[in-house]
Amino acid sequence: MDGSDHLAHERSKAQFDVEKMKIVWAGSHYAFQVSNRIARLVAGDPAFRKENRAVLSRKELFKNTLRKAAHAWKRITELGLSEEEASWLRFYVDELSYAYVHWGMFVPAIKGSGTEEQQNKWLSLATNMQIIGTYAQTELGHGSNVRGLETTANFDPKTDEFIIHSPTLTSSKWWPGGLGKIATHAVVYARLITDGQDHGVHGFIVQLRSLDDHLPLPGITVGDIGMKFGSGAFNSMDNGFVRFDHVHIPRSQMLMRVSQVTREGKYVHSNVPRQLVYGAMVYVRQVIVVDASIALSRAVCIAARYSSVCRQFGSQINEISGTGVETQVIDYKTQQSRLFPLLASAYAFRVIGEWLKWLYTDLTQKLEANDFSTLPEAHACTAGLKSLTTSAAADGIEECRKLCGGHGYLSSSGLPELYAVFVPACTYEGDNIVLLLQVARFLMKTLSELPSGRNYKLSGTTAYMGHMEHYLIKYCCNVQKAEDWLKPNAILEAFEARAIRMCFSCAQNLTKFADQSEGFSELSTDLVEAAIAHCQLIVVSKFIEKLQQNIEGNGVKQQLETLCYIYALHLIHKNSGDFLSTGSLNPKQASLANDQLRSLYAKVRPNVIALVDAFNYSDHFLGSVLGCYDGNVYPKLYEEACKDPLNDSVVADGYGEYIQPLLNQQLLNARL
Amino acid sequence: MDGSDHLAHERSKAQFDVEKMKIVWAGSHYAFQVSNRIARLVAGDPAFRKENRAVLSRKELFKNTLRKAAHAWKRITELGLSEEEASWLRFYVDELSYAYVHWGMFVPAIKGSGTEEQQNKWLSLATNMQIIGTYAQTELGHGSNVRGLETTANFDPKTDEFIIHSPTLTSSKWWPGGLGKIATHAVVYARLITDGQDHGVHGFIVQLRSLDDHLPLPGITVGDIGMKFGSGAFNSMDNGFVRFDHVHIPRSQMLMRVSQVTREGKYVHSNVPRQLVYGAMVYVRQVIVVDASIALSRAVCIAARYSSVCRQFGSQINEISGTGVETQVIDYKTQQSRLFPLLASAYAFRVIGEWLKWLYTDLTQKLEANDFSTLPEAHACTAGLKSLTTSAAADGIEECRKLCGGHGYLSSSGLPELYAVFVPACTYEGDNIVLLLQVARFLMKTLSELPSGRNYKLSGTTAYMGHMEHYLIKYCCNVQKAEDWLKPNAILEAFEARAIRMCFSCAQNLTKFADQSEGFSELSTDLVEAAIAHCQLIVVSKFIEKLQQNIEGNGVKQQLETLCYIYALHLIHKNSGDFLSTGSLNPKQASLANDQLRSLYAKVRPNVIALVDAFNYSDHFLGSVLGCYDGNVYPKLYEEACKDPLNDSVVADGYGEYIQPLLNQQLLNARL
Repeated sequence: MDGSDHLAHERSKAQFDVEKMKIVWAGSHYAFQVSNRIARLVAGDPAFRKENRAVLSRKELFKNTLRKAAHAWKRITELGLSEEEASWLRFYVDELSYAYVHWGMFVPAIKGSGTEEQQNKWLSLATNMQIIGTYAQTELGHGSNVRGLETTANFDPKTDEFIIHSPTLTSSKWWPGGLGKIATHAVVYARLITDGQDHGVHGFIVQLRSLDDHLPLPGITVGDIGMKFGSGAFNSMDNGFVRFDHVHIPRSQMLMRVSQVTREGKYVHSNVPRQLVYGAMVYVRQVIVVDASIALSRAVCIAARYSSVCRQFGSQINEISGTGVETQVIDYKTQQSRLFPLLASAYAFRVIGEWLKWLYTDLTQKLEANDFSTLPEAHACTAGLKSLTTSAAADGIEECRKLCGGHGYLSSSGLPELYAVFVPACTYEGDNIVLLLQVARFLMKTLSELPSGRNYKLSGTTAYMGHMEHYLIKYCCNVQKAEDWLKPNAILEAFEARAIRMCFSCAQNLTKFADQSEGFSELSTDLVEAAIAHCQLIVVSKFIEKLQQNIEGNGVKQQLETLCYIYALHLIHKNSGDFLSTGSLNPKQASLANDQLRSLYAKVRPNVIALVDAFNYSDHFLGSVLGCYDGNVYPKLYEEACKDPLNDSVVADGYGEYIQPLLNQQLLNARL
Repeated sequence: MDGSDHLAHERSKAQFDVEKMKIVWAGSHYAFQVSNRIARLVAGDPAFRKENRAVLSRKELFKNTLRKAAHAWKRITELGLSEEEASWLRFYVDELSYAYVHWGMFVPAIKGSGTEEQQNKWLSLATNMQIIGTYAQTELGHGSNVRGLETTANFDPKTDEFIIHSPTLTSSKWWPGGLGKIATHAVVYARLITDGQDHGVHGFIVQLRSLDDHLPLPGITVGDIGMKFGSGAFNSMDNGFVRFDHVHIPRSQMLMRVSQVTREGKYVHSNVPRQLVYGAMVYVRQVIVVDASIALSRAVCIAARYSSVCRQFGSQINEISGTGVETQVIDYKTQQSRLFPLLASAYAFRVIGEWLKWLYTDLTQKLEANDFSTLPEAHACTAGLKSLTTSAAADGIEECRKLCGGHGYLSSSGLPELYAVFVPACTYEGDNIVLLLQVARFLMKTLSELPSGRNYKLSGTTAYMGHMEHYLIKYCCNVQKAEDWLKPNAILEAFEARAIRMCFSCAQNLTKFADQSEGFSELSTDLVEAAIAHCQLIVVSKFIEKLQQNIEGNGVKQQLETLCYIYALHLIHKNSGDFLSTGSLNPKQASLANDQLRSLYAKVRPNVIALVDAFNYSDHFLGSVLGCYDGNVYPKLYEEACKDPLNDSVVADGYGEYIQPLLNQQLLNARL
């Protein structure tokens, strides 16, 4: 490596204060300092190296991950890291293990659904890692529909125990991370049955393995569900299955914060509101939105840096010798029109992630004060944004991979792994289409409750629906030239008009059905499209709101403005069918949006490398030879290639058996 | 396994003759028989089993592939299979190896670019596999732009040899399949230099490894480029790099069909037309279009079968016990609106693949008669269709995977592997965006050559451009009710109007630029969109043409009609922005297209399983527990899971080192 910065020229072109943008990206000065310190700690620790991940066999990969998880816990303990710091450390280790499920799902489940007594007992065991927990909800035959779960927890008043049982093959718990080989305990969701009566699905703490020798306890059949997408990705973790054959657990291990079974087998509710469960869903999905912005920004960072280093074709080439300087790939408009909207999306999702954090805090305070009024809106909005951002981020990562040409297909680019790790977010914690249908249901309900014929005051993200009359009758977009698209109001109104008109049209069509649920099912694809329009509006409006705030740093706000416009206008272009068919825009205005988009690409171009530098990702975290900070791509590609196990020997293993006899025409006699 | 057919009820609903549809899918009765016979041969041979592929380490996977390739060649020889049969056999073995590149690129390169003498010598060696060849064009720093290649072939008149040399790191050949560890020879593309003069890129046959001991020859540094996307996929093959340090080869090893270097070092052309090279490109890309229809249809088959088996939610559920019969996932409109257009696309691409086969035969005959008039159109059309079908197929495979919910993420679903194997088709043999720009360039040229002001007779896929005046001025879509969208002419005209208006608008905007190449670059994203509109029109029109032919079998043509309409109308819905902004449709008509689409989904629904059965894919070829013919999904998922190496032992390897000390709080003293 030559030590020079191949992207120095790109960096020198930046028109804003990169250090200040890092603060914006991190969320606060404090958040930047903590995450930056822990990132360096991880990147500097050779025990956390990860570049060999793709070539390990399943068993090697798994064992290596156990080693890293143990090392991480050792460092956390040695350094006395806070819970927040520990979570940053696990984040930067960037390798999925039982620890994520233990801290991210098992511990929160007990916090959320356990009584104070249960929390005292189990949380102290869990937070010291004297037990390792997982979260066992989905079953082999049951995913999205929690009410369809088959596992039973039958109360036996004679012994004061629950009998956990898997009555069928399809009732096998399937997918929980850490379950296959590691977890000692699980929160198991099962149908509670007392005296023959089914009370629906509840959570139970079930011990799976002995704390002495790690063997599964009697009645428990447990294992790994096998290889998953990608060569590393989720294969470092033991997503597992478990079947229960009449496993007895004490009554005290039902999570009893909301409802209880008494010693006599009576099923009773506490005074804790059930809505708290939705609060937990809002939390989990808000975290996923933050994940989406991080995953997408990693891919964008790699693609942007490589596109600046890589050169192809171009006018500067000497036609005869062919060896002139070719054009940087990032200067092609086709590359820009694919990459820059993704850069803008990464920033947009980061903004929306921070806003959702605020929303969750606000919601929690209200719930604690027994105010449930904003819960439906907060729930719909988080569900919709989880769906919107994860789908866009997954597609965006693959697009970034393709933007890197053939080399993006190499594991050393880091992009295949990034995709394989992230894409399940489109399915877990609510399938993205199912979530959009929930949003649509909420929107239809909101519309149906509007007093007809006059404007009405609504709060939160549905406030614009109060201006229904305006948007259905009077509204007419007044954009006349490309510059008009730089007015936040013009953008906002166009998105509001489109969303409200699509929703209204669905609502109108629904009235044609005698059976509402049949109508909802028939029109579900239109409803999904309306929900997407609503969610895109939320992102655009929150990004615009963010720009009303004071933002420090020379040129920082201007860059965010440019990104905000790119995000909004590329959506207008991509969804022009919606805007045109609802009459929210005319063809001329849609075409002007596209013209303005082109100008914005030119405007952001000199800042692109600085804008991805602002993510502050270390080379360790990025894990990509194409995306390394110094842009010295080719020697690194070569160096990584040489490390492949196939290069251990000059002549391949198998030559003697399968190649030599073939070349020598002696194959017919060979034993294969 | 219980031996019963869990999809029997679905099959009984089919309204057409499945056996006759199999013939249509295969292309002919003969093609069906050959492919069916070889598919069974491969599926029945235990040496070709592939279900363990995902868990093998890189070295194991590679060696296992060498074994299969040798076994395949042994069977081909033993059974005396024809070239066609042999190629079907390799296809059904379904594991990428050096054999694909040897037969698919090395042999054709010599056939296409070698003199008769060269063919006599090298083809007999190659077709007996006494040598194994690869095709070395792309370099570490040079992909799409062939003219930018850096490797040199310097003629030395003293020794009558070429000196093949890699002057820089970026000139290392990079990517050729089979190169890394196996190939003994390569067709190497290098800049021909005689007497200091650069004549551009030419092909040379270079021996890489000794035929005695397989060691690389002096001056040659060769190796594998490392892991790629996915756990199996292209990792079974040794995509490689090679660097040449002044490697001498005889003059006779330059491929001299089109141009030669004489003994004296003079560079001369033969009378063989250079255009033949384009004929070869048309061939290769036509094959890729066929591959796209196959890859997509495999994914659709898996998703359709699993969607019929899997049940979630639904009205039939007993709300209290929760154990009633849930709704088949395939009956949800949101599932249908994602899956059925992909089913239709698979059939559409199959039709276009057959048509391209005809186009290539037609072109070859013309080229042999020195008629080059149709070459530009044939070239543009194949390039565009390669781009269109591979992008749609890659996205479609991932969509099918997501349609299978969480289980689609398991390797045993077959879908991750299918995606990882297919997606590079978007990049190789011409990056899809670069290809669309070539199509756009051709379209702009065609338009600019139209005599202005009157209709003009054009042939082939650009014929509609002869009706420019009609479409720019007079045309008005006359669809007034949903049923009008079942008229082929209404569809065709809408697609023609949209394409021609988008092209015309680009052409108009281009005239605003003084510098045409600057204009082309500035407007490249619009040009790409116009090219896509043109290519979609080709697919739609050829599918409609196919339906004008006599098609045997009860109900077969009706099914194809339904699929054709679904294909066309879903494109109208997806691209409604284009149709509306060009005024080719009004919002009401676009909305009617969507209504008709909904009716078509209902119409095709009972036939879906039979339509995927018509692909005639064996369970071996599909390689998916979710897609198996009998639909007995859950026991197979469980059985496959149990085979994972992690399940070899009850307690995981690593427990003693990394889990026990953690649980026992003894980690601080442990050596990790």
